Order: sequence, then C-alpha cells, then structure tokens
Amino acid sequence: MTTTTSKRIRLSPDARREQLLDLGVRMLATRTLEELSVDALAEEAGISRGLLFHYFKNKQDFHRAVVQRAADDLLARTRSDPSHEPTARLRLSLTRYIDYVLANPQAYISLVRGAAGGDEAMLEIFDRTRAALTARITDNLGAYGVQDSPTVRLLARGWSAMVEEAVLSWAADPQLSKEELLRVLTATLPAVLAAG
Amino acid sequence: MTTTTSKRIRLSPDARREQLLDLGVRMLATRTLEELSVDALAEEAGISRGLLFHYFKNKQDFHRAVVQRAADDLLARTRSDPSHEPTARLRLSLTRYIDYVLANPQAYISLVRGAAGGDEAMLEIFDRTRAALTARITDNLGAYGVQDSPTVRLLARGWSAMVEEAVLSWAADPQLSKEELLRVLTATLPAVLAAG
Repeated sequence: MTTTTSKRIRLSPDARREQLLDLGVRMLATRTLEELSVDALAEEAGISRGLLFHYFKNKQDFHRAVVQRAADDLLARTRSDPSHEPTARLRLSLTRYIDYVLANPQAYISLVRGAAGGDEAMLEIFDRTRAALTARITDNLGAYGVQDSPTVRLLARGWSAMVEEAVLSWAADPQLSKEELLRVLTATLPAVLAAG
Repeated sequence: MTTTTSKRIRLSPDARREQLLDLGVRMLATRTLEELSVDALAEEAGISRGLLFHYFKNKQDFHRAVVQRAADDLLARTRSDPSHEPTARLRLSLTRYIDYVLANPQAYISLVRGAAGGDEAMLEIFDRTRAALTARITDNLGAYGVQDSPTVRLLARGWSAMVEEAVLSWAADPQLSKEELLRVLTATLPAVLAAG
C-alpha cells in the first residue's frame, strides 16, 4: 500500500501508528537516525507535523519507537523453526540476520550504536534485543552438546557481539563472500561454546 | 605527585596538559564521561576554568583527549612480551585488560560506547584502538597455526568485540571467577581463529 492510497483510508490510531513506524524503519535504509527528523517523516507520510505529534510525544519518543520496531523486525525475521537440524537452523537465522543488516543498515546501526548515546530507553531496547537473540542459543544448548552455566551464557552473549561486529565490518567493507561469512560465523558458535 | 605539590612546580604546557589528562582518566573511575565537566576537572586540578581552556579548546575537545588517553593507557598496559609463549602472552594481556576495565570502568565504557554517540572523532579513537588490539593477533597468527586471510582478520576483530562484551557483562555482574573468565577467553581465541 502506498502512502498516497493510505491517506484516503481511515485507519484506527493504532494501525496508523504502526504504519508510521514501518515507514520510519524503511526511511532508515537511506539515512541515519539523526537524519530521520519528524518533518521528514511527516512529509513522507503526507500528514502534518502536528498530527505526527498525536502519535509520538516528541522526537526522542519517535526515535525510540522506530528503533524498537527495527528490533522487533530483526527478531521476527531471524526466528527459526525448532524442528530443523541445529546447524541448518543457525545458518538460516544468520542468513536472515545478514540480509536484514544489508537491507536496513542504518536501522541496524541505530539499534546497535544507539545504545551508546547515553539514552537509557535505547540501551534497554538494545539489551532486550541482545538478550532475546542470546536466549535462542542458551535455550537450545543441548543441540551444541554443552551444559548450561554462567560461563556458557557469557560466551553466548559474547558470540552475539562477535557476530554483530563481524557483520557490521563486513557490510562496510566486504572482503569475503557472503557465503564465506555465513560458513565461518556458523562454525564459530559451537567452537566458542565448547571453550566453556 | 599530588595535585597540591604540582601546583607549586612550574611545568611546561605539554607536561601540564599530560597531567590534566591523567587526572581526567582517574576521575573517570567514579563518574561517567558526561559527568566529567570542565568545572570538576578545574576544581580537582586546583586551576581556574579559564586556564583549563588554555589546554583544551572546549568540553568536546577535552573529552576526546581524555578518551584518547584512556585508549593509550589500555594499549600500553596490555602490551605483551613477544618472547613469551603465545598462550601465556595472551593470558597475561587479557589479565591486564580485565584489570584495566575493573580499575577504570567508566573510562573503558566511554571508550567503547563513546563511539556510538555520533561523534566522528570518538569513533575514530575507538576504531584505532580496536584495530591496534586486533593487529596484535593478526601480526602473530603463526602462533595460532593459522594463515592470514580476510576471514581470519574479520574473526580476530570479532573476537575483540566478544572479549569487550564479555568483560563488560562480567564486570557489571560477575557470575564466574576472574580465573574462570580468563581461562575461557584465552581458550576462545584459537577456537575462533581455527574456524577460519
């Protein structure tokens, strides 16, 4: 549905807010979070700045909601089917993770780096997202032949940070194929967990 | 040398600036970078705010210089003797890294997270520091029995991010002993590089 069409349809306030958030995330494909102004969103959505503030208290509230939406998207897209074999499952999840970062680089950078701006709410979004990604590993340790322990949990969290860094570095300057990136990241998880 | 003594000694401008930076890093042991104001430093150093601006253009310049000093300290303290056996060398370097983080938590967090505030100069300090830490691994790959390649370089960088995350998480909530943390981080580097 294009924004022009949507203007003619009366949506519930909740549905309208959801639509604005989707638009906000899409706009992050080509601009940074700092560049995502309330004015730019209002213009793109074809609504007034005043109406936008009906859905978001202020710019900070709007930015947090957009980053939360980006986090929800990332988690939803990388969810995998527990009936699959662990390595295939991990590989598929990593493929979708990489694809998400490539399609939404600024949304992803905002999620990862936004946590560092000293905004407590952003830090919480980041922490919850990393915790959710890490829990997919720690809820499924049997697949890697390791027992749950504080050490293994710390390693799972560390591995998530490694993937985050590797994918961001790779996206900025891809010196290896996506296939090779996938192969190597898939191989590191059991290797790291086994060190526990 | 205490600040009281130093007030009575005429130092060169460069030496005085160095002393102010050391003081700035020490002050980060108990406060965040945001809380490290020019006023607080001037008071602690026993000099006027005006004189401080003789050494630093503005607050941002002062913060960057303090974070650069924290990065230099971290690199200097974690430097290891190439004549030592690789595992002992890695373990010693990690020990000093953990000790630095424990002694200077806010300086370290500012270095790691400051990069995310959208300040290009801070991002550069962070990138140079991570590159220097990563180069210690990639300059010494023979010790781990692996050949240099873009994949191995990406893994070395990823491993640095894993250590950063694990040490920060551990310092915030130590659920394992420092000995166990050291053991496991030392074990993960060859495991990760072997995946390349």
